[in-house]
Amino acid sequence: MKKTLLAFLAAAIVLLAASTGFLSRPAFADEGMWTFDNPPLKILKEKYGFTPTQEWLDHIRLASVRFMDGGSGSFISSRGLILTNHHVAMGQLQKMSSAEKNYVADGFTAATTAEEIKCPDLEVNVLVSMEDVTARVKAAVAPGLSDAEALKARRAATAAIEKESLEKTGLRSNVVDLYHGGEYWLYRYKKYTDVRLVMAPERQAAYFGGDSDNFTYPRYDLDMAFFRAYENGEPVASSHYLKWNPRGLAEDDLVFVSGNPGSTDRLYTAAQLEYQRDAGYPLILKYIDRYLDMLRAYAQGGPEQQRRALGRIFGLENAKKALSGEYRGLMDEAVMAGHKKAEEEFRALVKSDPELEKAYGDGWETVARAVALDARDAEKRFHRQLTGSQLAGMAGTIVRYVAEVKKPDGDRLPGFHDSELEELRFNLLSPAPIYKDLEEWLLGSWMEWSLEVLGPEDPFMTLLLAGETPRDLAKKLIAGTRLEDVKFRKSLLDGGERAVRNCKDPLIVLLRRLDPMLRDAETWRRENVESALTAGGEKIAQARFAVYGKKTYPDATFTLRLSYGMAAGYPMNGTRAPYMTTLYGLYDRALGFGEKGAYALPRRFWERKAALDLSTPVNFVSTCDIIGGNSGSPVVNRAGELVGLIFDGNIESLVGRFVYDDTANRAVSVHCAFMLEALRKLYDAAPLADEIMPGSSK
Amino acid sequence: MKKTLLAFLAAAIVLLAASTGFLSRPAFADEGMWTFDNPPLKILKEKYGFTPTQEWLDHIRLASVRFMDGGSGSFISSRGLILTNHHVAMGQLQKMSSAEKNYVADGFTAATTAEEIKCPDLEVNVLVSMEDVTARVKAAVAPGLSDAEALKARRAATAAIEKESLEKTGLRSNVVDLYHGGEYWLYRYKKYTDVRLVMAPERQAAYFGGDSDNFTYPRYDLDMAFFRAYENGEPVASSHYLKWNPRGLAEDDLVFVSGNPGSTDRLYTAAQLEYQRDAGYPLILKYIDRYLDMLRAYAQGGPEQQRRALGRIFGLENAKKALSGEYRGLMDEAVMAGHKKAEEEFRALVKSDPELEKAYGDGWETVARAVALDARDAEKRFHRQLTGSQLAGMAGTIVRYVAEVKKPDGDRLPGFHDSELEELRFNLLSPAPIYKDLEEWLLGSWMEWSLEVLGPEDPFMTLLLAGETPRDLAKKLIAGTRLEDVKFRKSLLDGGERAVRNCKDPLIVLLRRLDPMLRDAETWRRENVESALTAGGEKIAQARFAVYGKKTYPDATFTLRLSYGMAAGYPMNGTRAPYMTTLYGLYDRALGFGEKGAYALPRRFWERKAALDLSTPVNFVSTCDIIGGNSGSPVVNRAGELVGLIFDGNIESLVGRFVYDDTANRAVSVHCAFMLEALRKLYDAAPLADEIMPGSSK
Repeated sequence: MKKTLLAFLAAAIVLLAASTGFLSRPAFADEGMWTFDNPPLKILKEKYGFTPTQEWLDHIRLASVRFMDGGSGSFISSRGLILTNHHVAMGQLQKMSSAEKNYVADGFTAATTAEEIKCPDLEVNVLVSMEDVTARVKAAVAPGLSDAEALKARRAATAAIEKESLEKTGLRSNVVDLYHGGEYWLYRYKKYTDVRLVMAPERQAAYFGGDSDNFTYPRYDLDMAFFRAYENGEPVASSHYLKWNPRGLAEDDLVFVSGNPGSTDRLYTAAQLEYQRDAGYPLILKYIDRYLDMLRAYAQGGPEQQRRALGRIFGLENAKKALSGEYRGLMDEAVMAGHKKAEEEFRALVKSDPELEKAYGDGWETVARAVALDARDAEKRFHRQLTGSQLAGMAGTIVRYVAEVKKPDGDRLPGFHDSELEELRFNLLSPAPIYKDLEEWLLGSWMEWSLEVLGPEDPFMTLLLAGETPRDLAKKLIAGTRLEDVKFRKSLLDGGERAVRNCKDPLIVLLRRLDPMLRDAETWRRENVESALTAGGEKIAQARFAVYGKKTYPDATFTLRLSYGMAAGYPMNGTRAPYMTTLYGLYDRALGFGEKGAYALPRRFWERKAALDLSTPVNFVSTCDIIGGNSGSPVVNRAGELVGLIFDGNIESLVGRFVYDDTANRAVSVHCAFMLEALRKLYDAAPLADEIMPGSSK
Repeated sequence: MKKTLLAFLAAAIVLLAASTGFLSRPAFADEGMWTFDNPPLKILKEKYGFTPTQEWLDHIRLASVRFMDGGSGSFISSRGLILTNHHVAMGQLQKMSSAEKNYVADGFTAATTAEEIKCPDLEVNVLVSMEDVTARVKAAVAPGLSDAEALKARRAATAAIEKESLEKTGLRSNVVDLYHGGEYWLYRYKKYTDVRLVMAPERQAAYFGGDSDNFTYPRYDLDMAFFRAYENGEPVASSHYLKWNPRGLAEDDLVFVSGNPGSTDRLYTAAQLEYQRDAGYPLILKYIDRYLDMLRAYAQGGPEQQRRALGRIFGLENAKKALSGEYRGLMDEAVMAGHKKAEEEFRALVKSDPELEKAYGDGWETVARAVALDARDAEKRFHRQLTGSQLAGMAGTIVRYVAEVKKPDGDRLPGFHDSELEELRFNLLSPAPIYKDLEEWLLGSWMEWSLEVLGPEDPFMTLLLAGETPRDLAKKLIAGTRLEDVKFRKSLLDGGERAVRNCKDPLIVLLRRLDPMLRDAETWRRENVESALTAGGEKIAQARFAVYGKKTYPDATFTLRLSYGMAAGYPMNGTRAPYMTTLYGLYDRALGFGEKGAYALPRRFWERKAALDLSTPVNFVSTCDIIGGNSGSPVVNRAGELVGLIFDGNIESLVGRFVYDDTANRAVSVHCAFMLEALRKLYDAAPLADEIMPGSSK
């Protein structure tokens, strides 16, 4: 349920990239990931008799946190304490760990703030303002431009807005494309980069049931982690934070989720969905299997190799299960038929108005053509890159960085605008450990695979291998590079074009050689595919505003959204799944599987069992509409109190990428009572329990 | 999972009656309900390295019990103690209960044998011998007879064999048609009709989760009941009984089930399956819904009405869920395609041998024609009966009885042969209570419904109503009849044709009037449908023996079978179901549903929780191939010890009526450890616990 890897794969494999179209149905049931400027007030009032005040909305928004690692969270104390999922924290835990200290496996509890551990490269954001800049962005695109020119002009305009805002406010400033070109909003974030680990349980408790239970329910996971945001070496004074409510909730209670859903494809055209079903998903699932094979082969090397590979294996298994579920959804004829019917109705309405038809009628055709073009040689294009090795990726970024920053801001490649440089440098200069044996293995495996797919005569392979075998080349490159050294990377960034040009580091040398070819491929796709998808998608979006008005929510964009729903069980395998589980069930499931593998409980769960109240609720489900990226989102009640922590969706929720159906789509949360019970009775974390719930550690 | 009601509905609705054809695939995986004369020795040796001795087989068979109520059981002590399911016992519990004493809701534990309660009309059987009489039965059918004449001759022959055996041995003697006319076996049973209730828990514990959890897993049911067989007023000395093994079993352990599966349709022809899918199941499911509506309307009358209707409602809900699952199986295109492919291969092999083709080739066509004929007016024919009222049913049986018993044995209708009379009288003279308000309601509802379907001009309706409204007629019939009095029924049976002819009882008068028309309808079906199905089916069976040999098991016939398999979880809803559950899980599920409805635990489960070992295994699943009728079957290990008690199949097992697939088809059992723990710590049944497991009540 985590976003990072999904996002990585989606970006890497261009097949899954294009997203356009527009939702045809009016929102019903408990559907929707709503922007905070447009909450579903009418539905909330009619269905639940509840109207959030502006103050309520602002408070929830300002207490919500985005993890740039790919997840969500919330402030839960006045001293900058942040709650998220263990699996959102896992990347940082892995980076903090070593052969000697394994925070993933063993967990961590800081007895005092002095013991809290700084994350190597974690950035978290709070959305402090939202401003509609649609008019300014649209004005920047002069009539008569080609699709490619229009795309470039729009990018230049958004980069300028972002830069101007950053300079004026000092805040992270992003222009967000909502409704696929329907609206552009300037989102400003307060960002924190000094974030410290406060507490995380053992992964065995957090991820009880492992990959098998992932994306399923009933569930029994303590998928929590606590961080603290610092500024100037002091915990931040968070004026907006959520009050902890350990009584939780009853069945049918109204709840809200405030978080950052990564991406949905509910507005895809039928042509796009069919392409995904017939080609995109089969291909990406094949790729994941191959990556997993590479990583598992490496992990065979011993316990330390296993530890090093664990984070990536988890990410890929997670992605595989999510994508497999989405794929099953696409294969469901009813899903596809419903989507087509809605599209046909919409197109008929457009056709019936000559003016609309003239302005927007060719949008679908434009998208279909772009998709067909994108499909051509997609597998080859995918392999004409270097993937899998962090060091090679850094080399590529450094080579580009020094060339791009010299250009006027509006002319640069995406990712290199002034407003983006701070984040780029933050990531590139992360002190997180890099394992050269793993790097060599992945880089060699990747090149071997590309050689299989492309053949030795392919120009990219010729340029890349220059007569070497993939394994030999990987060995030389990784053994010879110094890029694992942060100071060396920094010297290249600061030294500029000249330093990079003169650099003899074998990875830098290689990427200098490859960069022109990589740039050509990207330019081709931007000018021929992306620009057409954007142009066609924007027409469809305009048509939809014209026909249906703005009564719904945009596709997910990893920006802050509000979902709502109720705690509710659902029909499952001939019976019903209960709306909540208890600690009794955790022990039942562990014993039912003979405590094998991911079903083994940490010893403390047995040693301290007598102290626990086994009727404590553990996990619960609600109809809230969420998707990957929502991991770690707070679940709040009408009073705005925290009652749970989103950590997963059930298997029936995976089709939610394309369509929301509240029959069985459920968001899975950790119950506040379980977290408190665990802190108090299992982890000796009384100070932390007292901080989130004063006086609770009796 | 109980057989009775299914059998009733299957018999009542002729649509589902015909069963023929022959299994085409060789048995694989853990498939098969094997007769004790032909256990799958080769498979057991190859897959599990186990070869049961003849002694082992005899011991298991002689410790196994058939409940004529529709279920299975086993002897578990040297003093005639029998273990079965609560839901198999439920019919008797219901009959023993009254407005004052509700054994269903409250349970029962006899402290001493003196307190044990005699069942009103329970018969249990032990299969003491099996004899192949195929040659004799086949010899009775002279060449050149029409299908109808052949059917009659065969029936006369089997009736004669049964009568002869009964007279010679005094044992219940039944000729069983195996392999659909492939073989006939004389099964002799020791029967017990003095059976007494020893112990039954509250239904809330036995049927925890109710209709919702029925036919599903993970499960947490104490679905057990204990009876004792008596002879001459003394507990029987059972030399063959199963030793209790409370350690139970580990995952992957080989286990066996010995019981009486009711019926399977794995040998249906494709034409029969298609008919069932397109007409049979939709119709029967509609009927069940209507019956349920009638009963629920009655149960609205108050708690006593609810109590009276409970058994039938349970039976219908159970049947509905089972049939719905079977129907989904038929709707699964892969199931149907697999079946057709196997049939085509088989027919091609028959065609390739001119001799076989000549002798048997028209079998499929014969069956297809019979099915088509049976389908014609099936709904009308179904309504040209009186159903739902026990008293009307008894009146019909009495009217027929006195006429049939005068005829030579070979000429009588099925059910009235000498060898069958004892059972007929036992059932007809049962002292079980009959509720006249319920009788009136059901009879009136049924006639109203038939009037809707048939219309007032239908000859059956005219003869039945004779100008009255259904409700008025039902009122008069039920108010005026004395048939609820056992002595009165006995006087009519003993008084013979003369007594019945002169009887003024309104129900007897009515059934005298209707009987000729009912007989005509039955004769028509027997001579035109059943005879052709039998003839065609037998040809297919012979062809299959000729092509494939006898390497497999016959369809289920509610006679003793041996299934085998292993304790094993299975893939479920994106994850796996564990092979067993524990007491922890029972509390979890109760709390997860807020203890609402069928998820409320009996108070003793809370009051005595501290005394329980919550890690005690509760239920477990195995790959053993079972179906309704197996309820109450013992699960034994290699040593022949009792480790569990079959009580259900999971939702994935329901397609097992047509095809066995061990991916997810699982039999669900109560674990021996749970039963013992419950007897000792929840039900104060130390003497009983000591009887089944000497010294266990510590």
